[in-house]
Amino acid sequence: MSADENARFIAFEGGEGTGKSTQARLLAERLRARNLDTVLTREPGGTPGAEAIRTLLLDPPGEGWPMRAEALLFAAARADHVAQLIRPALSHGKWVVCDRFLDSSRAYQGLAGDLGDDLVRALHDRGSEGLLPDLTVVITADAETIASRLSARDGDTSDAIGGRDASYHARVNAAFVRFAEAEPDRFAVVDGMGEPDQVAERVWQAVSPLLDGGT
Amino acid sequence: MSADENARFIAFEGGEGTGKSTQARLLAERLRARNLDTVLTREPGGTPGAEAIRTLLLDPPGEGWPMRAEALLFAAARADHVAQLIRPALSHGKWVVCDRFLDSSRAYQGLAGDLGDDLVRALHDRGSEGLLPDLTVVITADAETIASRLSARDGDTSDAIGGRDASYHARVNAAFVRFAEAEPDRFAVVDGMGEPDQVAERVWQAVSPLLDGGT
Repeated sequence: MSADENARFIAFEGGEGTGKSTQARLLAERLRARNLDTVLTREPGGTPGAEAIRTLLLDPPGEGWPMRAEALLFAAARADHVAQLIRPALSHGKWVVCDRFLDSSRAYQGLAGDLGDDLVRALHDRGSEGLLPDLTVVITADAETIASRLSARDGDTSDAIGGRDASYHARVNAAFVRFAEAEPDRFAVVDGMGEPDQVAERVWQAVSPLLDGGT
Repeated sequence: MSADENARFIAFEGGEGTGKSTQARLLAERLRARNLDTVLTREPGGTPGAEAIRTLLLDPPGEGWPMRAEALLFAAARADHVAQLIRPALSHGKWVVCDRFLDSSRAYQGLAGDLGDDLVRALHDRGSEGLLPDLTVVITADAETIASRLSARDGDTSDAIGGRDASYHARVNAAFVRFAEAEPDRFAVVDGMGEPDQVAERVWQAVSPLLDGGT
């Protein structure tokens, strides 16, 4: 998928409070410390257009998006992000580290949202020509740890998606593990328990094989 | 497609300056004068969410949407509009008169925008379960009339889509005629030349067969 042979596209996935945003940042810092030109980005967002769509998704102007509209908005944001930031970076030989990507849509709208995996994949094929990460790191954590991390966040979870009920989020978390089991070559499941530096070390074990031209 | 046997869904299509918005309004007035409960709406828009997407489409936050993202945003707006306004109105036996619908996406993004009809139809199938109007009225006008109407509009055509070049808009206009030729039962092509009341009379000739249970 990468247009330059040195470029790598790494996505971080996981439910709310698993620590994936922190880990994405720590990985980008570690790659830059090795003089690898690295773009750290996130979804939904990463470009001016996609960030505007993010605002509509997390704070809907009406009474909330129907799930099909929500899936289309995520696909639209991703199409902009892929065309205007991710593909150009990869074609210039950069590493791209992205906090959430396609597999979040598969988990949140496809599986937990009951639209089905085929629909989400079809939108991704049409919107982003099916671009997939070279590696997707799924961060896991137990329910108690997640709850304590989220309660420390000053209401950051009250958006339209993070605020859904516990059974929805349990299905999201189960979806990521299931995706990883189905495609072990594209995924690495990393235990997110413990201090961020300990988790970062586990992430590094999963990512470092890609450093010397591995795929 | 209509959930109630008395409900009818009429869409107006055409390029910029053909007069379709005026004709949609005149038709809704005429239906209401016959005591038919009628919803007049438009795309992109018609619901708070879809109107917010309209703003992003016509005034993009970044340097302009890639065509794939634009098509996904139109499909997202339509999915919200169909789920939250059009289907509920039809299921309550109302007439729905809509200024633009799916065939605008087919013309602007599919044909003139080079994404292809299959892609636009696939997004509509996934986003709105393929809902089609009972009748789509295509309003045509000659290039000189369109130019004089648009120049009278105080810069209303300077949005990101209306402002595209003349060859793009020529392809849009040709697309609508082609669609009508391919599906004569779903389309009526109406000459938009002359005074609005004259055109409205032609529209009425096309719509009135639907009044007494016709499809």
